[in-house]
Amino acid sequence: MAASSSSFCHKNALSLSTPSNNHTKLTSRDSSLRFPPSISFNAPRFRVSLLSKSNRNLILKASATSAAPAMDQITSSSSSSEVPTSVEVDLGNRSYPIYIGSGLLDQPQLLQKHVHGKQVLIVTNTTIAPLYLEKTIWALTDGNPNIKVESVILPDGEQFKNMETLMKVFDKAIESRLDRRCTFVALGGGVIGDMCGYAAASYLRGVNFIQIPTTVMAQVDSSVGGKTGINHRLGKNLIGAFYQPQCVLIDTDTLNTLPDRELASGLAEVIKYGLIRDAEFFEWQEKNMEALLARDPIAFAYAIKRSCENKAEVVSLDEKESGLRATLNLGHTFGHAIETGLGYGQWLHGEAVAAGTVMAVDMSYRLGWIDDSLVQRANKILKLANLPTTPPETMTIDMFKSVMAVDKKVADGLLRLILLKGPLGNCVFTGEYDRQALEDTLRAFCKS
Amino acid sequence: MAASSSSFCHKNALSLSTPSNNHTKLTSRDSSLRFPPSISFNAPRFRVSLLSKSNRNLILKASATSAAPAMDQITSSSSSSEVPTSVEVDLGNRSYPIYIGSGLLDQPQLLQKHVHGKQVLIVTNTTIAPLYLEKTIWALTDGNPNIKVESVILPDGEQFKNMETLMKVFDKAIESRLDRRCTFVALGGGVIGDMCGYAAASYLRGVNFIQIPTTVMAQVDSSVGGKTGINHRLGKNLIGAFYQPQCVLIDTDTLNTLPDRELASGLAEVIKYGLIRDAEFFEWQEKNMEALLARDPIAFAYAIKRSCENKAEVVSLDEKESGLRATLNLGHTFGHAIETGLGYGQWLHGEAVAAGTVMAVDMSYRLGWIDDSLVQRANKILKLANLPTTPPETMTIDMFKSVMAVDKKVADGLLRLILLKGPLGNCVFTGEYDRQALEDTLRAFCKS
Repeated sequence: MAASSSSFCHKNALSLSTPSNNHTKLTSRDSSLRFPPSISFNAPRFRVSLLSKSNRNLILKASATSAAPAMDQITSSSSSSEVPTSVEVDLGNRSYPIYIGSGLLDQPQLLQKHVHGKQVLIVTNTTIAPLYLEKTIWALTDGNPNIKVESVILPDGEQFKNMETLMKVFDKAIESRLDRRCTFVALGGGVIGDMCGYAAASYLRGVNFIQIPTTVMAQVDSSVGGKTGINHRLGKNLIGAFYQPQCVLIDTDTLNTLPDRELASGLAEVIKYGLIRDAEFFEWQEKNMEALLARDPIAFAYAIKRSCENKAEVVSLDEKESGLRATLNLGHTFGHAIETGLGYGQWLHGEAVAAGTVMAVDMSYRLGWIDDSLVQRANKILKLANLPTTPPETMTIDMFKSVMAVDKKVADGLLRLILLKGPLGNCVFTGEYDRQALEDTLRAFCKS
Repeated sequence: MAASSSSFCHKNALSLSTPSNNHTKLTSRDSSLRFPPSISFNAPRFRVSLLSKSNRNLILKASATSAAPAMDQITSSSSSSEVPTSVEVDLGNRSYPIYIGSGLLDQPQLLQKHVHGKQVLIVTNTTIAPLYLEKTIWALTDGNPNIKVESVILPDGEQFKNMETLMKVFDKAIESRLDRRCTFVALGGGVIGDMCGYAAASYLRGVNFIQIPTTVMAQVDSSVGGKTGINHRLGKNLIGAFYQPQCVLIDTDTLNTLPDRELASGLAEVIKYGLIRDAEFFEWQEKNMEALLARDPIAFAYAIKRSCENKAEVVSLDEKESGLRATLNLGHTFGHAIETGLGYGQWLHGEAVAAGTVMAVDMSYRLGWIDDSLVQRANKILKLANLPTTPPETMTIDMFKSVMAVDKKVADGLLRLILLKGPLGNCVFTGEYDRQALEDTLRAFCKS
């Protein structure tokens, strides 16, 4: 992410509100998770229905029972203290809310009620600090003078998501004499969230933390669900922890400063939810991709909320990735190979996932598990989102194979993959597939 | 620890057996843990009673109802496949056994039943590898040819318990393509156990691990309870995780090769249990310290088991150190300051804890919380165990204060300490004490 500021600026325009305490609580839908050889997952049929009591606020009605959710009533939205939409991640006594809305960083009490202790460490990067650090410090301290806020500003980029950079967080925390009752705050994109979360998991054997994601990628995916960690030179996210935050605070205004390339990268994960489990969401995306690229605030608020609902439901059912949660990695095994093979930071995560998704879809088709029209639709929407649909030319078959061999989904030497199977919105997580199909896919996408 | 082999060698003489499945299950004793300002803890009144059904085995009867446990019946003990004593750490679905006995590494099935998957990584050091690595590999593979065992041999010593050394474990695991179903095995003392455990907690966000402690320190304390981590240059164990093993396998034969200095170091933790919560055990130690120093196998087996019972009970009641568990750190805040101030590896952990215990006892006396006879008894038994009772001369008051300020027990700027209060076997964990007493203790033990 370059330190640029987009010309797009709809301050307080990207708004989505609901009545107070309208938590979308997700409950168990499939408790009979099986492990290998193969697991199939069907699209959920949850219902999203938001109606604000206040006519000052934007009203969004979205119902998954129709082919595409309607967004049919819009009123004014200018309050900076509106009640945010909230999606609950249901993990027993470790449950937490995801707040989604415009201007949430203008509501100090929202953030402050999740801060434990009197010490806070904000972990951010050189791009985000000039934009939102001051505001975040204000949100933490306004009306709360006894709190001590420290910050550590890391270099920006996937290439810095490593142990060396992580140690800077520990150094700062220890030098600031932060104790076990402190709270770490991740202010940034996926790299910051992953590193701050792992630092919080490990500092003094675990302190509280809060996610404030500022990219689409982080808002729709990485900030939710407690996967934290760093990369190893031989593979992505190989060192880390499952560690849940106290809350996720998504101020959609932060997207106003997001570069186009970063925005598109995040859309790769939005598209993923549609392909693996939410056909109606996918169909909505097909109709609204241009609105998303134009940063239409209503469309974006909806896409973020629906993505978070999908993510929260999956995490609630399978926190530690025994099976179901692995399906969120559609395209990621190929994608991680691209990121690691090219060198971290060359392609954005979502760009690599997009190309990886095309490869996974291609392989699913070669196995006879999906029909050609789904291949075309997947390719088309990724292209519409300005995402790559082929891996970089420098990637060879051997590079793919060597990185994929250390993927976290390998079990007893067998590489398990997420592949589409059946109609749109259905997938499997399996190690039972014809090896020739994988070979053929790699050959089709690599020159050597 | 030097790579020396003690002349003491009672192979299969240090034996302690019980009937099969004689698990000492510990249940909740005090569920009403309070946090600050102050917590008091009384000695437990549990009963230890072991009787073997087999007259081939050593029989030990120990009853905490008498002032000192009797060890009054000994029969022959030469079998290498005897049933081990087992102490259970009761943590719900994460409960695990601690096996204690002679020749346990000669019983492959005992170890193998706790190995998950087909891949094992043994983490050990340059001292222990020549002594026990081959035997451990044999125990893992005998009759189990499908298992793949890798090992990584780290440098030996507290000065290597850092991120740089930890990365060697990750490097080896990734290069060996170990997947999520693998098992890490810690073969060594406390440093190896702490590092291997933290590596297991973090590798692929968590894999199984087994503790095979080979020092008194690790057998009576550090291998039990799931505290894992590494040091930071500014303080001990500041980075880590609470992460429980699948089992702890204590083969008391491994003590045969332990240098005297390491053996004495471990006794500091044994003495600690007596002082903070087990007066009868302390009285037993007063009578049996010479036997322990002479490595009497019966005395040692009893001291290890009783220590593990104390540790297991505390961990079962307070896994994440909300209160009670902190009492296990008697002398550790002063001790960690010595270890960090002197430079890791200069003094052994137990040596620093011994001097720290004398300081904590001195401070307790200055506060008027214990009488002089307890001060004398604590000093006497530590001296009997050949442990230091004053900090190194190079330690200054400022060195103590600066390291103690980053101790994990600091809360909201207040340093909480474990201090004795009342009769032998009682202590408090508190931040409510006269600061002058701390000053006076530091002045009494430091030249400047």
